[in-house]
Amino acid sequence: MSPQDIRMSGFQSRSTVDEALAWLDGAVQEIPQQVEEISLELSHGRTLAERVVSQIDVPGFDRSAMDGYAVIADETTGASDYNPIRLQVVGDSMPSNGYSGEIRSGQAVRTMTGAPIPRGASAVVPAEYTEVVDDNVLISLTVGQFKHIGRTGEDIQIGGTVVDAGRILRPQDVAVIASIGQAKVTVRKQPFVRVIITGNELVRPGEQKRPHQIYEANSSLLSGTIPRDGGILESVRFIEDSESAIRNALLEPGADVILVSGGSSVGAEDFAPGLVARLGELPIHGVAMRPSSPTGLGRIGNAIVVLLPGNPVSCLCAYDFFAGRAIRQLAGRSKSWPFRTIELPLGRKIASAIGRTDYCRVRVEAGKAIPLAISGASILSSTTRADGFVIVPAASEGLPAETPVTVLLYSELFMTN
Amino acid sequence: MSPQDIRMSGFQSRSTVDEALAWLDGAVQEIPQQVEEISLELSHGRTLAERVVSQIDVPGFDRSAMDGYAVIADETTGASDYNPIRLQVVGDSMPSNGYSGEIRSGQAVRTMTGAPIPRGASAVVPAEYTEVVDDNVLISLTVGQFKHIGRTGEDIQIGGTVVDAGRILRPQDVAVIASIGQAKVTVRKQPFVRVIITGNELVRPGEQKRPHQIYEANSSLLSGTIPRDGGILESVRFIEDSESAIRNALLEPGADVILVSGGSSVGAEDFAPGLVARLGELPIHGVAMRPSSPTGLGRIGNAIVVLLPGNPVSCLCAYDFFAGRAIRQLAGRSKSWPFRTIELPLGRKIASAIGRTDYCRVRVEAGKAIPLAISGASILSSTTRADGFVIVPAASEGLPAETPVTVLLYSELFMTN
Repeated sequence: MSPQDIRMSGFQSRSTVDEALAWLDGAVQEIPQQVEEISLELSHGRTLAERVVSQIDVPGFDRSAMDGYAVIADETTGASDYNPIRLQVVGDSMPSNGYSGEIRSGQAVRTMTGAPIPRGASAVVPAEYTEVVDDNVLISLTVGQFKHIGRTGEDIQIGGTVVDAGRILRPQDVAVIASIGQAKVTVRKQPFVRVIITGNELVRPGEQKRPHQIYEANSSLLSGTIPRDGGILESVRFIEDSESAIRNALLEPGADVILVSGGSSVGAEDFAPGLVARLGELPIHGVAMRPSSPTGLGRIGNAIVVLLPGNPVSCLCAYDFFAGRAIRQLAGRSKSWPFRTIELPLGRKIASAIGRTDYCRVRVEAGKAIPLAISGASILSSTTRADGFVIVPAASEGLPAETPVTVLLYSELFMTN
Repeated sequence: MSPQDIRMSGFQSRSTVDEALAWLDGAVQEIPQQVEEISLELSHGRTLAERVVSQIDVPGFDRSAMDGYAVIADETTGASDYNPIRLQVVGDSMPSNGYSGEIRSGQAVRTMTGAPIPRGASAVVPAEYTEVVDDNVLISLTVGQFKHIGRTGEDIQIGGTVVDAGRILRPQDVAVIASIGQAKVTVRKQPFVRVIITGNELVRPGEQKRPHQIYEANSSLLSGTIPRDGGILESVRFIEDSESAIRNALLEPGADVILVSGGSSVGAEDFAPGLVARLGELPIHGVAMRPSSPTGLGRIGNAIVVLLPGNPVSCLCAYDFFAGRAIRQLAGRSKSWPFRTIELPLGRKIASAIGRTDYCRVRVEAGKAIPLAISGASILSSTTRADGFVIVPAASEGLPAETPVTVLLYSELFMTN
């Protein structure tokens, strides 16, 4: 056994969660940021890498904000239901086909929403306040200068910044970029995330299993969390517990982040920690947290490697604390938790230990955060019964009932009814 | 002109937002719910249509929760660092390959996390508290009955409900379904949403535009909001302002929801309202709200039709109020807003009118909701500068500064840094 080999002898010492996060954030920072130019229509949810500046005014011309009649504003003074004024309709202005002439005193042009305002006109009277009589229109509303006219550049001016770099593009951000005529945007690349699933005892769902086999669940978990955090699932590799198979899966190029599920600890068949240490570095192995203490963090070349415990709850916890954070940062997102939070009093005490960070699943019931009684690392069903989790920091021995706590609610978009 | 034709004469009367929502929810309710069986790996974010019941116990056998040594718990009584007890190691239990014999007094079996507990053993001592000496192991920890043993069925029991119908599947929900061996799930079908973009003045981003043309932005907006709400974009159809072209796009089968952008109002080229009324029904046309008053709601056969104003802000507002709500319900989601809310005092007054519902974009600054000054329906950039919006209900004349309001924050996942 090499000096680094701790198999079957236990972790000598564990890093704190803060130490682990500090190493991880530093390692992510050292990876050069990568950008790509993509079609605007594919950019929803992507992180803008360069600010978008408009080359045009929007609108590009004074245009009508209503269906109605373009008029000389002053000529409507005093117009009302009881005292309509009569104007001669001299033509139409349609959105794609403006009125070519100029309005003179006593004239109006029928105009549609979005149509150019004819020369000479200075306001639009909405259709509701008009009545057509032969070639004339009766106007029953007094309108002021520029009423119902969208002025050139009032939305966006030439040279103005439309969306700043760093924005995670929302539907309306994409729309505003479309409105200045830009069909492509430069965004941060999404990291490719490889998932390596180890464990000879595992069987895929849908297959027959023998008595001591178990169904593999972590790839199902990670295939949901990785895209949520802005990563692309490069591949899921189901690999036998053999050093050479794991080595090949770690070394194959094409991944920015490699997640290894299972075999992360100090068991006799836990090959991954030693491999990562030899092929690159594994500065963090064993973290003072519950669950997920056998987590490992390292890198091979420019690929961040996270060793996730095989127990599903530990896997989720270690993913949330470390892997998701790395993926979000590589995608140009915030490293902070992607969950909505609420402040609630604890419904029951949580026991913890000084020096250890706890990830405690809770239900939200009657305005309180209720820790789930069954909280073993293997109890995956606890995460489906949970509405979220509470983090008990390393400095705390535990939290008495009624303590106000911050609950991180699992995934915002996937709301239940 | 038919009696229903209100082109260039203005809306006779407008429905309230509540009336429009009541009709819409009723129409959606009448559409038969559709379900489909899909692969588990494709089910993230989908709505479960049938509860999932386990056919197996998880774990299916008593298993070790630690790497260490399976022992007879009673035999460790009094064991400590200063007083280790010595047991004979008689074999290994690996996750996929258990120990076939039975432990007798004075014996231990080296066991890995997840491995079956050998017959006769009643606890596991973690590797950290052991030391191997030849064929023996020194145990320096007293463990109680069943310590570090995951009991059969402690996670999930045969016949137990794993996830209830109606759940929008989160990553851990998918994982727990995998853990019971199920490879398929029955979920609500996602509605197919057709987007029809009308307007002869529109040019696609990336193309050259003539002076009075404008770049089309609403399809970019809707291609982001529709998937967010659980719909599938069936197609985007850019159609000239001609009655026959719009008619064909409305009648072609394949859409559960049809969104028509532009031509929804009372302009001379607004063909869509009359067409929908003739081909099906258009009970709501004109809603007492700002922006988006020219919104229309109707149906053709089983397809819900929403007429969205062409102005981008109106389009977003009408989508959010009506179209998104219909899509979410058809996808089996909640009809409520998909946005996170916060309560904040208003930084400046909002003017409104009794009888009219307002959708007012706000920025969140220094703990206040600041209404954006430029709030015309055509000012798309206001939505990108906004963090969210405030709804001023029909019963209100407006809200003075410092009024506590509920801010609906645009899209949770697309957080800015």
